Amino acid sequence: MAATRFDVLGVGNAIVDVIATADDAFLGQHGIEKAAMTLIDETRAEALYAAMGPGQEVSGGSAANTLAGVASLGGRGGYIGKVADDQLGEIFAHDLRAAGVDYSTAPLRGGPATARCLILVTPDAQRSMNTFLGASTMFSEADVDAERIGAAEITYLEGYLFDRDEAKAAFVAAADIARKAGRKVALTLSDGFCVDRHRDSFRALIAGHVDVVFANEVELKSLYQTDDFDAALARIRTETHIAAVTRSEKGAIIVSGDESVSVPADPVEKLVDTTGAGDLFAAGFLLGLARGADLQTCGRLGVLAAAEVISHVGARPLVSLAELASARGIEIPPAV
Amino acid sequence: MAATRFDVLGVGNAIVDVIATADDAFLGQHGIEKAAMTLIDETRAEALYAAMGPGQEVSGGSAANTLAGVASLGGRGGYIGKVADDQLGEIFAHDLRAAGVDYSTAPLRGGPATARCLILVTPDAQRSMNTFLGASTMFSEADVDAERIGAAEITYLEGYLFDRDEAKAAFVAAADIARKAGRKVALTLSDGFCVDRHRDSFRALIAGHVDVVFANEVELKSLYQTDDFDAALARIRTETHIAAVTRSEKGAIIVSGDESVSVPADPVEKLVDTTGAGDLFAAGFLLGLARGADLQTCGRLGVLAAAEVISHVGARPLVSLAELASARGIEIPPAV
Repeated sequence: MAATRFDVLGVGNAIVDVIATADDAFLGQHGIEKAAMTLIDETRAEALYAAMGPGQEVSGGSAANTLAGVASLGGRGGYIGKVADDQLGEIFAHDLRAAGVDYSTAPLRGGPATARCLILVTPDAQRSMNTFLGASTMFSEADVDAERIGAAEITYLEGYLFDRDEAKAAFVAAADIARKAGRKVALTLSDGFCVDRHRDSFRALIAGHVDVVFANEVELKSLYQTDDFDAALARIRTETHIAAVTRSEKGAIIVSGDESVSVPADPVEKLVDTTGAGDLFAAGFLLGLARGADLQTCGRLGVLAAAEVISHVGARPLVSLAELASARGIEIPPAV
Repeated sequence: MAATRFDVLGVGNAIVDVIATADDAFLGQHGIEKAAMTLIDETRAEALYAAMGPGQEVSGGSAANTLAGVASLGGRGGYIGKVADDQLGEIFAHDLRAAGVDYSTAPLRGGPATARCLILVTPDAQRSMNTFLGASTMFSEADVDAERIGAAEITYLEGYLFDRDEAKAAFVAAADIARKAGRKVALTLSDGFCVDRHRDSFRALIAGHVDVVFANEVELKSLYQTDDFDAALARIRTETHIAAVTRSEKGAIIVSGDESVSVPADPVEKLVDTTGAGDLFAAGFLLGLARGADLQTCGRLGVLAAAEVISHVGARPLVSLAELASARGIEIPPAV
C-alpha cells in the first residue's frame, strides 16, 4: 500500500467557539441543556449571545480540535470542513493551519456565516454548548477530497455531521473512499442527544463501515438503549474492531475483540473547562493507533491529551503535547 | 452641577485583540519591537497573522479595557469608539456591553474592517502589540457625543488616539466639551513610542487641558526627554492636577501639588500576561477619583485591578473586581 501523507484526517463541522462563564441560574433561565450540545438557529443564537457575558473566541469544532491535538503530539494531520468567506472563517482557517494541520477546504461564498458555538462554562467546569451550524451545513460530497482521504492512515468522522443531510452524505462518501483505499475509518458518537437523533444510522454505519468507535458512557448506553454499561460494551465489542469508551474521572476502557484495556485518568491539578476532553482523548488515541502503538499506549496518549485540555479554558492544547508525552515517558512510534 | 450618568467615560480606539504565544526568536525574526505598541498596515497585519501561532480573540482597546474594569468595580461606565459593521465589530460591541459598559457609537459601513491588535506574549509575560487601526481611525468629531461627555464625572482619553489626525481632533473636542461642562479630563500617555511620536502635542494638551495624567516611567521620562525620573516627576507636578505613574513591580507613585503618595504593587501569584496592566490601573484609580476617594485609596484600587489582569491571558478582568476590593477591605464610596 502506498505511503501515507496523514496519520489522521478529520472530517467535521468547522466552528468558532465563543466561550463565556455563566452560573446554573443562567442556564435555567435560558432553557439551556447542561453539559450537552444543542443545535440552535440564527435567531436563538443572536438572543443568547446578547444575553451572555463577555466572551473569548477560539477556533473549535470537535474533529478540528482533535486534529489540533494530533498535530501538537507531532502527528501529520489534515482536516476537511466548511467555513464561510468571513472574519470568523479566516480565524478558523488560520488557527488550524497555525496548529500545523493541513486544511484547504474552499470557504463558502454568499451563504450563511461561519458556524459558531456559544459555550457557557459553569463553576463546576461543565460546558453547555449551543451551536449555530451556519456555513458548516453547506459541507457536501464535493468537499470530500478522495486523494486526501486515500492518503490518510485513519479518516476520523464526527457524529455531529449527521445533523444535516448534506453533511451526512459527505460523511458516508468519506467513509467509503477510505475503506476502498484500504484505510481505517474512525467515528465519534459526539453527544448523547446526537445519538438519540441518529441512533439507527449510527448503528448501521458502525456495523458495516467503521473500524474504531469513540464514545462516552452516556453515548454508548444511548446507542443500544440500555442502562447496563457492561451489556452495551459487550455489544459494541461484536460490532466494531476497536471501541474506546471514555468515563471522565474513571479514565477510559478500550475493547477490541476479546481484549479489554483499562486506562486510569491522568490527574488534573485544577479542572477548569471540560470543553474538548473527548476530542483530545481521540487525538492521542488516534495518533497512537495510526503509528501502530498498542492499545494501552493509545489510551495513555488519549488521557494525557484530555488532561491538558481540561486544565484551561478552550478546547485545543496550549502547550506541546509531544513534550508532555515525552516527559511522561510515553513513546510515540515514528510514521511509517 | 447636574448629577452624572457616568463615573468614567472612555474615548479610544475600538480594537479586538488576537493573542498568541511566541518566543523571543519569533519577535526578532519578524522585527517586532518587544513590549511596545507598533502600528502596522493591512499588508503587514496579514503577513504577521499568517506567521503567528493559533490565537484567541478577545475584545481590547486601551480605554475600552479600562472601562470594562470600571464596570467590574461596580462603576458606571460609558465608551466612545469606532468599529466596523463586521463580525469583529459585533464581538467588540457585545463584550463591552456585556461587561456593563454603555456603548452606542455607530459602526462604520463600507470602510476598513474593525481594528485588531496582534499580541505576542513571550514566556516572560511581556506583550508585544502590533496594531492595525482599521475602522478605529474613522473615529471623528461627529462621534463625540456632547451629552454623554457632559454627563460623565471624568472623561478619559487614550494617547493612542493621537496617531490619526481625525481621531486627534475628536480627542481635543471631547476634552473641550468636558472642561466646558465643568467635568474632569484624564489622559493616558499610552506607550513610550506613542509619546515619541506626539511629544509636543501631549505637552501642550497636558499644560492646558488635562486634570489627571497616567503614565509609566518610560513614558514620563520620554515626555520630558530626560533620564532623571525625579526631575520628570517634579515637572509634571507643576503641569497637571494629578499624575499617577505606574512602575511595574514597584507599584505606583501619585503626585498632586505638594502631595506624594506611594502605593506598593499587589502580589501576583503567577505573572502570565502583562497586557492591560496600565489600563486596569487606570480603571481602579479613575473610579476611586470619580467617587471622591483619597489618592491612597485610588492607587490601591488601581494596583488591585492591575494585579488581577496580569494573572491571566487577556486585558479585561475575569472575576468581579468589586468583590476583590471588598475582600481586601477597600471601600469604594457610592456614586453621588
